[in-house]
Amino acid sequence: MKPGPNSKLPPLLAFGAHPDDIEFGCGAVIAGESRAGRQAHFIICSRGEAGTHGTPKQRATEAHTAAALLGATVEFLELDGDSHLEIRAAHAIKIAGIIRRVCPGIVLAPSLVENQHPDHWRLGKLVRDAARLARFGGLKELRKARPHAIGQLFYYAVTPEAEPPDITPVLIDVSSPEILRSWTEAMNAHASQTQARAYVELQLARARLRGLRAGVSHAVALFPNDPLVFNSLEQTGRGERSF
Amino acid sequence: MKPGPNSKLPPLLAFGAHPDDIEFGCGAVIAGESRAGRQAHFIICSRGEAGTHGTPKQRATEAHTAAALLGATVEFLELDGDSHLEIRAAHAIKIAGIIRRVCPGIVLAPSLVENQHPDHWRLGKLVRDAARLARFGGLKELRKARPHAIGQLFYYAVTPEAEPPDITPVLIDVSSPEILRSWTEAMNAHASQTQARAYVELQLARARLRGLRAGVSHAVALFPNDPLVFNSLEQTGRGERSF
Amino acid sequence: MKPGPNSKLPPLLAFGAHPDDIEFGCGAVIAGESRAGRQAHFIICSRGEAGTHGTPKQRATEAHTAAALLGATVEFLELDGDSHLEIRAAHAIKIAGIIRRVCPGIVLAPSLVENQHPDHWRLGKLVRDAARLARFGGLKELRKARPHAIGQLFYYAVTPEAEPPDITPVLIDVSSPEILRSWTEAMNAHASQTQARAYVELQLARARLRGLRAGVSHAVALFPNDPLVFNSLEQTGRGERSF
Amino acid sequence: MKPGPNSKLPPLLAFGAHPDDIEFGCGAVIAGESRAGRQAHFIICSRGEAGTHGTPKQRATEAHTAAALLGATVEFLELDGDSHLEIRAAHAIKIAGIIRRVCPGIVLAPSLVENQHPDHWRLGKLVRDAARLARFGGLKELRKARPHAIGQLFYYAVTPEAEPPDITPVLIDVSSPEILRSWTEAMNAHASQTQARAYVELQLARARLRGLRAGVSHAVALFPNDPLVFNSLEQTGRGERSF
Amino acid sequence: MKPGPNSKLPPLLAFGAHPDDIEFGCGAVIAGESRAGRQAHFIICSRGEAGTHGTPKQRATEAHTAAALLGATVEFLELDGDSHLEIRAAHAIKIAGIIRRVCPGIVLAPSLVENQHPDHWRLGKLVRDAARLARFGGLKELRKARPHAIGQLFYYAVTPEAEPPDITPVLIDVSSPEILRSWTEAMNAHASQTQARAYVELQLARARLRGLRAGVSHAVALFPNDPLVFNSLEQTGRGERSF
Amino acid sequence: MKPGPNSKLPPLLAFGAHPDDIEFGCGAVIAGESRAGRQAHFIICSRGEAGTHGTPKQRATEAHTAAALLGATVEFLELDGDSHLEIRAAHAIKIAGIIRRVCPGIVLAPSLVENQHPDHWRLGKLVRDAARLARFGGLKELRKARPHAIGQLFYYAVTPEAEPPDITPVLIDVSSPEILRSWTEAMNAHASQTQARAYVELQLARARLRGLRAGVSHAVALFPNDPLVFNSLEQTGRGERSF
Repeated sequence: MKPGPNSKLPPLLAFGAHPDDIEFGCGAVIAGESRAGRQAHFIICSRGEAGTHGTPKQRATEAHTAAALLGATVEFLELDGDSHLEIRAAHAIKIAGIIRRVCPGIVLAPSLVENQHPDHWRLGKLVRDAARLARFGGLKELRKARPHAIGQLFYYAVTPEAEPPDITPVLIDVSSPEILRSWTEAMNAHASQTQARAYVELQLARARLRGLRAGVSHAVALFPNDPLVFNSLEQTGRGERSF
Repeated sequence: MKPGPNSKLPPLLAFGAHPDDIEFGCGAVIAGESRAGRQAHFIICSRGEAGTHGTPKQRATEAHTAAALLGATVEFLELDGDSHLEIRAAHAIKIAGIIRRVCPGIVLAPSLVENQHPDHWRLGKLVRDAARLARFGGLKELRKARPHAIGQLFYYAVTPEAEPPDITPVLIDVSSPEILRSWTEAMNAHASQTQARAYVELQLARARLRGLRAGVSHAVALFPNDPLVFNSLEQTGRGERSF
Repeated sequence: MKPGPNSKLPPLLAFGAHPDDIEFGCGAVIAGESRAGRQAHFIICSRGEAGTHGTPKQRATEAHTAAALLGATVEFLELDGDSHLEIRAAHAIKIAGIIRRVCPGIVLAPSLVENQHPDHWRLGKLVRDAARLARFGGLKELRKARPHAIGQLFYYAVTPEAEPPDITPVLIDVSSPEILRSWTEAMNAHASQTQARAYVELQLARARLRGLRAGVSHAVALFPNDPLVFNSLEQTGRGERSF
Repeated sequence: MKPGPNSKLPPLLAFGAHPDDIEFGCGAVIAGESRAGRQAHFIICSRGEAGTHGTPKQRATEAHTAAALLGATVEFLELDGDSHLEIRAAHAIKIAGIIRRVCPGIVLAPSLVENQHPDHWRLGKLVRDAARLARFGGLKELRKARPHAIGQLFYYAVTPEAEPPDITPVLIDVSSPEILRSWTEAMNAHASQTQARAYVELQLARARLRGLRAGVSHAVALFPNDPLVFNSLEQTGRGERSF
Repeated sequence: MKPGPNSKLPPLLAFGAHPDDIEFGCGAVIAGESRAGRQAHFIICSRGEAGTHGTPKQRATEAHTAAALLGATVEFLELDGDSHLEIRAAHAIKIAGIIRRVCPGIVLAPSLVENQHPDHWRLGKLVRDAARLARFGGLKELRKARPHAIGQLFYYAVTPEAEPPDITPVLIDVSSPEILRSWTEAMNAHASQTQARAYVELQLARARLRGLRAGVSHAVALFPNDPLVFNSLEQTGRGERSF
Repeated sequence: MKPGPNSKLPPLLAFGAHPDDIEFGCGAVIAGESRAGRQAHFIICSRGEAGTHGTPKQRATEAHTAAALLGATVEFLELDGDSHLEIRAAHAIKIAGIIRRVCPGIVLAPSLVENQHPDHWRLGKLVRDAARLARFGGLKELRKARPHAIGQLFYYAVTPEAEPPDITPVLIDVSSPEILRSWTEAMNAHASQTQARAYVELQLARARLRGLRAGVSHAVALFPNDPLVFNSLEQTGRGERSF
C-alpha cells in the first residue's frame, strides 16, 4: 500500500515492543491512514529475540515487509532487548528525541494494562512520559532538537486482555476491503509467529466483533490518553451502539 | 442567537429535568450548535415547582427566554413533577415517542451519577432507555411513529459532582465570545435561581478550567454513552493535554 | 440434545427477558450442562412483542424449538411485557417462588450492566434479589413453598457491551463439536431474529475469541455474583492466559 | 504436617518477600494443599533484615520451622534485600528460571496493591512477569531450562489492605481443625514477629470472617491473575453468599 | 447507656430497613455518640416480618430494648414492608419530612451496594435522595416543615459485602469497654436473630479487624456520601495505617 | 506569613518534584497551617532544570521566596534531576531518612496519577514507600535515626488531571483572605513560570470551584493515603454538598 498524496496530515508515529506488535494491534488503522495519505513511521524496540519462534534476523525482515505492506517506514530502537525492557528516564528521553525528530500529530503505543507481555505496558508508559518530555525546552540531552507537542496519544491493545477498562475507546472503521487486505497481508508477513499461533484469526475476529457491534464490517478500538477536543458536535462521529 | 442556515445537520434534542438544567449543564454547547446551523429542541420535564425560588410560571417564562437566547425551541413534558420523578417504562416510552417525532442526530441528557438531584439521573436513565426503545419496531404505544436510531447520546453534568468518573469525556471548545455571551445571558435569564446562588459563576469557572486545561479559553465536557466511531484518525480531534 | 442420565446434579434455572436471550447469551453452556445430564429449565419473561421482527406466536414457537435443541424445558412468565419491565418487589417475589419450586443449584440471569436493552439488566436485578428472597422463611406470599438456597448465581452477557467490567469471569469451555452444533442450531431456531441481524455470527465470534485466548476452540464467559468457594486449589480449574 | 501421597498434583510454588509473608498471607492454603498431597516449595526473597524485630539468622530459622509445619520446603533467593527490592528484568528472569526448574501448576505471590510494604507488590509484579517469561523459548539467560507454562497464578494478601479490589477472589475453605492447627503453629513459629504485634490474631480473624460469610468455619481468599477456565458448571464450586 | 449532657451536638438520625440493621451495622458508633451526649433517633422501616426467625411483635420489642441499650429512641416507619421495599418518590419525601422534623446533623443509612438484602440499598438510596429533598423549599407535601440541610450522610455496612469499594471510609474508634459492652448487649437483644446465626461474632470480628489495622482495639468504618470539609489539617484525624 | 506560636502541632513535611509544585498544588493549605502555628518544611527534588522557562538558579531563588511567603522552610534534595526521576529503593530510603529527621505529623506529596509530569507521581510513590520505611527499625542505612511513624500522608494534585479518582478527598477551607493572599503571592513568586502560562488563574479557579461546591469561598482537595481515624462523629467535619 502506497501512501496517498495528502501531505498536509502530520505524520503518525507508532511504537512496538516487538517486530509484530504494531501490525497485530493496530495494523488496520495504519493501513487506513497510509491510504488517506498520512505518513506512518514505526519504531520497533526489539528484534523479538526472546520469542520461541523466529530468529532476530528473520523477524527484522518480516517487520520491514509488513511495514511496507502497510505503507509505513521502520526503524529499530535499541533499548534493553526483548523481555528485558525496564522503565528508565534515559529510555523516555530517547523516545522524546524521536518524537522531536519526526514531529508526529498522532502517536500510537501499546496499552498500559500490566497483565500482558512485560515489554508492552512498559513501552506504553515510556512513550506516554516521552510525549510530555518532548515539550520540555530545558531537557539537556535534547537541546539540539526543537520541542514538539503531539496532537494525541492513542494506545492500541495487542490482545483483548490489553484493552484498558477505564478509557472509553474510539473505534476506527477499517471495513474497506483494501485496508483489510493490506492488514491481513502485513500480519501474515510475520510468518515465524503466525505458524505457531492463530494470531491472525484472533485479530480478525476482534475487528469483526467490533465491526458487528458498530454496524460496519470491521473496526479497531484505540484508547485515547487524553479527552478529545472538538469544535462542534458534528465532529464527534457517531455512537457505536448497533445491537 | 439565530440558528444559521446549515439545514443538513440532524436536529439536537436536549432533555432537562428542571427549567434551567440544560442551560447550566451544557448551554454553551447548544449555543455553538445553533450558531453552526443545527436545530436544537429542549424537552423540560418539570416546572421546577419543588425548588425554593421561583414560581412555576416564572420558571417556564425563564426557560423560554433562555432557550431563545440559545437559538433553541422548548417543550414541556409532564412526567411525575419536580422531585417526584420515578423510573417507569411508560416515561421511557413517552420519551422514545418524542425521539421518533424529532428524529435527532444528537441527544443530550443529564448524567447518570446518582449523587445529585434525584430527578437528574433518573431522567438520564429514562432517556438512555428511550434511545433504545425508539428503534424497536413492535412497541405498540408507538406504532404510528417510525422507528428512529439516533447518532449519539451524550450526557451533560449540571454540577461537577455529576461528571461520570468512568466515561472519558469529549471536550467541546466554546471559546467564541459570541457563544460565551449567549450562554451567560441564557443562564442569567433564570433570574429566580441565579439570585440565590452563584450558579453562573460556578459554570463559567468550570468551563474556564476545562478551557485552561485544553489550551483554549473555555470548554465544556460531554460524556458519550457509547464509543465514538470514526473513519480515520484525522477526525478524532486532538488530545486535551496542555498543562 | 437429550439430557444425560446424571440425575444427581441439581437443576439449572435460566432467566431470559426475551425468547432468544438465553440462547444467544449462554446457549452453549446450557448445551454442555444438558449433555452432562443436568436438567435445565428456562423462564422467559416476554414474547418479544416489542421487537421489530417476529410475531409473539412465532417467537414462542422458536423458543420452544431452541430450548428443545439445548435439552431444556421452557416456561413463560408474565411480568410487564417486552420493553415494559419495571423493578417491582412483586416481580422479585414471583421469581423467588419459581426458585423455590425448581430448587436449582445454578441460576443464570442477564448481566446488570445498564447500557443494554432495558429489560435485560432489570431482569438480572430482579433475579439477584429473588435469589435472596427465596431463602426468607417469613415471606407471606411464598409461605406454601419451602425456602431454598441456590448454589450460585451467574450472569450471562447477551452482547459484549453487557459484560460486567467489575467481575472476574469464569470461562466455560464449550469446544465440543456436539455442543457447538446444538448451540448454533438453537440460535438459528430464532429465525425471525437471525434473518435481520448477524446475531449468530456475533456470538460465535465472541466464543471463538474467548476460546483462542484460553487455548481451546470456543469458550463462554459467565460472571459469578459472589466469590466461588472451593475446598482445594485442585478444584480451581486453570487460568485463561494463553496468548 | 507431612505431604500426603498424591504425587500426581503438580507442585505449588509460593513466593514471599520476607520470611513470614507466605505463612501469614496464605499459610492455611499451603497446609491444605500439603495435606492433599501436593508438594509445596517456598521462595523467600529476603531475610527480613530491615524489620524492627529478629535477626536475619533467627528469621531464616523461623522460616524453616514454619515451612516444615506446613509441609513445605524453603529456598532463599537473593534479590536486592529487605526493603530494597526493585523491579528489574534480571529479577523477573531469575524467578522465571525457578519456575522452569520447579514446573509448578499453581504459583502464589503477594498481591499487587501498592499501598502495602514496598517489597510485597514489587515481588508480586516480578512473579507475574516471570510467569510469562517462563514460557518464552528464546530467552537467552534461560536457554538451558525448558519453557514451562503454569496453570494459574494466584495472589495472596498479607494484610486486608492488600486485597485487590478489582479481582473477584476465590475462597479456599480451610476449616479443617488439622489445617487450622498447622497454620497457627506455622505463624507462631515466627516468634520474633508475633511477640511485637497481633499478627496471628489478625490472620485468624480474617479467615474467620471470610468463613462466617461463606458458611464455613474459616476461609482464605486468593485472587486469580486470569479468569478460571472450567469444563462445566459442576466444577465452579458454590457461591460465597451465606449472610 | 444514657445520653450525656452535651446538648449542643445536633441529633443523629439513623435509618434501618429491619429492626436489627442499625445495631449490627453501626451500633458501636451510636453507643459512642450517645455517650458523648448526642441524641440518637432510629427510624426502622419494617418489623422484619419476612425473616425466617422472630415475629413482628418480638422484633419490635427487641428493637426498643436494643435502642435503649444504645441510648437511642426508636420510631417505626411504614413503607412497603419487609422485603417489599421499592424506590418511590413518595417514600423519599416521607423520609425528607422526618429529616425536617428531627433536624439532624448526622444521618446514617445502609450502604448502596446492591449485592445485599434488597431492602438495604433501596433504603440507602431513598435516604440519600431524601437528604436533598429536605432542603427544597417548594416541595408541596412538606410545606409545613422548614427545609433542613444535614451536616453529613454516612453509610454503614450491615455485612462486609455491603462495604462500598469506591468510597474511602472514615474509621470510628469504638475501643472503649463501655461502648463495646453496650453494643454487644444491643446486638444480643435481637435474640430472635442471634440464635440462628453468628451475627454478633461476625460484627465483633469485623470491628476487631478494623481496630487491629488502625492500632486500636476496635473500630467501625463509615462511608461518607460527600467529601469531608475541614478548616485545618489538625482536624483530619490520623491515618489508619498500623500494619 | 510567619508561623504562629502553636508549637504543639507536629511539623508538616511537603515534597515537590519541582520548585513550584507545592505552591501550585497545595500552597493555600500550607499558608493555613503556618498561620495556625504549624511548622512547615519543603523538600524540593529538582531545580526545574528541564523546564522551558527559568534557570535553575532563578528557580531556586523563587522557591525560597515562595516558601517564605507561606511561612515554610526549604531544602533541596538531589535525586536524579528534573525529568529524570526514577523509582529506586535508594531514593525512598533517603526520603525515609528525612522523615526520621523532621518527625512530621503530616506529610504531603504529589498524587500517584500517572498521566501527569513523570516526576510527580514517581515522587509520590517514593514518599509513600518512604513513609513505611521510616518505621522499620532494621534498615541499615538509617540505623542512626530513630524510626518515626507519621500521622497521615496526603496527596495533592498539581493539576486537575492529577486528582486521584479512587480516593475520596478531604477539603480544606482556605477562604481566609490572608491565606488567599499569601498563596497568590507565593504562586506569583514563581515568575519564571507564571509569565508563560496561566497557572495562577488555573489554581485559583480550581479552589474557587471547590469552594463554591462546599459553600465557602475557596477550598483545596487533599487525598488521604489511608482512611482517617476519628474518636467520634463530631470530629468528622461536615459534608461538602452545597449545590
